[in-house]
Amino acid sequence: MSEPRTIAEDGDGVVILDQTLLPTRTAFVRLTTLDEAAHAIRTMQVRGAPLIGATAAYGVARALRQGVELTAAIDVLAATRPTAVNLRWALERMRRALAKSAVAERRERAWDEARAIAREDGETNAAIGRNGLPLLQVVEHRPVRVMTHCNAGWLATVAHGTALAPIYAARVAGDDVFVWVSETRPRNQGLLTAWELRHANIPHALIADNAAGLLIMRGEVDLVIVGADRIAGNGDVANKVGTYLKALAAKAHGVPFYVAAPVSTIDFDCPDGAAIPIEERDAAELGDKVSRGDTPVANPAFDITPSGLIAGIITEQGILPPTGLAALRR
Amino acid sequence: MSEPRTIAEDGDGVVILDQTLLPTRTAFVRLTTLDEAAHAIRTMQVRGAPLIGATAAYGVARALRQGVELTAAIDVLAATRPTAVNLRWALERMRRALAKSAVAERRERAWDEARAIAREDGETNAAIGRNGLPLLQVVEHRPVRVMTHCNAGWLATVAHGTALAPIYAARVAGDDVFVWVSETRPRNQGLLTAWELRHANIPHALIADNAAGLLIMRGEVDLVIVGADRIAGNGDVANKVGTYLKALAAKAHGVPFYVAAPVSTIDFDCPDGAAIPIEERDAAELGDKVSRGDTPVANPAFDITPSGLIAGIITEQGILPPTGLAALRR
Repeated sequence: MSEPRTIAEDGDGVVILDQTLLPTRTAFVRLTTLDEAAHAIRTMQVRGAPLIGATAAYGVARALRQGVELTAAIDVLAATRPTAVNLRWALERMRRALAKSAVAERRERAWDEARAIAREDGETNAAIGRNGLPLLQVVEHRPVRVMTHCNAGWLATVAHGTALAPIYAARVAGDDVFVWVSETRPRNQGLLTAWELRHANIPHALIADNAAGLLIMRGEVDLVIVGADRIAGNGDVANKVGTYLKALAAKAHGVPFYVAAPVSTIDFDCPDGAAIPIEERDAAELGDKVSRGDTPVANPAFDITPSGLIAGIITEQGILPPTGLAALRR
Repeated sequence: MSEPRTIAEDGDGVVILDQTLLPTRTAFVRLTTLDEAAHAIRTMQVRGAPLIGATAAYGVARALRQGVELTAAIDVLAATRPTAVNLRWALERMRRALAKSAVAERRERAWDEARAIAREDGETNAAIGRNGLPLLQVVEHRPVRVMTHCNAGWLATVAHGTALAPIYAARVAGDDVFVWVSETRPRNQGLLTAWELRHANIPHALIADNAAGLLIMRGEVDLVIVGADRIAGNGDVANKVGTYLKALAAKAHGVPFYVAAPVSTIDFDCPDGAAIPIEERDAAELGDKVSRGDTPVANPAFDITPSGLIAGIITEQGILPPTGLAALRR
């Protein structure tokens, strides 16, 4: 059985699953231009740090075909979302790979490099799943109960997911897992996670984000696994807003809190969480003006979880202590 | 100027503001029977612990007029919502007041007692406002920034509110206050708070519940004030689900976290938070089956904030230390 994928090549473009329509509707969008790729990232038709990176790489490849200059294409794509470092990582990888090529060769080379980024993302996440699997095999005679936040499943990546990768690996291994899915206001990405889990026949329940504290207090959560949009050099993690509150509750009750992310999510140029830019998104995400009565809104899309709250970072290279990341710096 | 009120006598019934339609529509409902009062509480046309108590008291008075037996009426009303202790407090007060009266006199006496409960709630909350006011007068040269959760404004009471009472008192005193209003999923009572504050010309901003941690971490919150549905004898507080997460974040960053509630919210028969029943509400509150894809849902309506996270309980008798409530027991 082939793994479900979010992005696939289709002639001289790529086809993506439009995630703004899920879970009510499954529709695909074909991206063939730089502008279409940038629009898809900005409006969250594609979302999730790893998938944003792969989409941007294909966007660079298409831009070169259109005759757009490499640096100009990278600048347009880099400006779409500020927080996820994988976007910048993928664009830098494209820049380095293409800088050596003559302009005439770049078009072919760009497509190959984008394809490599996408393929490697799937492989990386499969390894995250294998490395995280033992964390789910610690409970006997009942399902292990994992809480997650936002969507860090296959929809957020090219394939397999990050936070959900160990859960999918457990399913393949025949282990029973139950997942607490938090709604993830204001964009409700929890519904995407519920959609994924339903299609994979993995037991789960949806909760309001507000319910996480009570469930953890009651002992109904064995561990928490979330994804990451950027990890600072000191192990502080930027992830979907609301992650920090779950980490505080987990710490208060001795529940291990894990982050699952590829090593490319670590930004060694960022000393700590305070240096990570937090995207402020549109007020309309909290409801239309009628339901808000035109109330002023603050809408930060991410928050920072200090490394001291994190039990480990599940990567393709193993489970890393959040305070020992500097050793990975090359 | 008279204070806005949520419930008013109208001939042989009471008129309430239907809070399920706010903030998009302002409509009133007349309650003249026991069943109408019970329905209004159960469906949250009236909500907020103090207002539920007052509505139930009037419900008892109407039930006696209908010829319903006192105990039967109390049982019907007590079964509408399990967590708020003010409901039970108001019903017990009605029972005690009427037990001494001959059945023939009870009808008149019941209406007088319900009226007294409603009047005293307004007076109690005005006192909470006066007692909490000094907490908001600690910042100079800029507005004090208060975060609240759910709606514990005048809409949640007969008049003045509890958590918002000190904010309204500050407004009257000419002090500048800014309020962070959290959305309060799944019922979005934050929109009620925003509606109240807009009508009172008090600056505020709406946030997703998930954003509370980041704002507190960034130092954008000077104090947190929330209401309470029940306070255990040891000072643990049951309040709208999500309260506990805010208390954890406040504690982590040294931001004082206050609870504002009348003394009647203290349940001395409840030794601690674990003994407080938590209402589980319908799955539909997290969205209809189409948007949820018929995903299983857990929907606890309240959570428990341990007394150790609470700086003080603002009551009509002053600001009480949460661990010193036993002294109030009569």
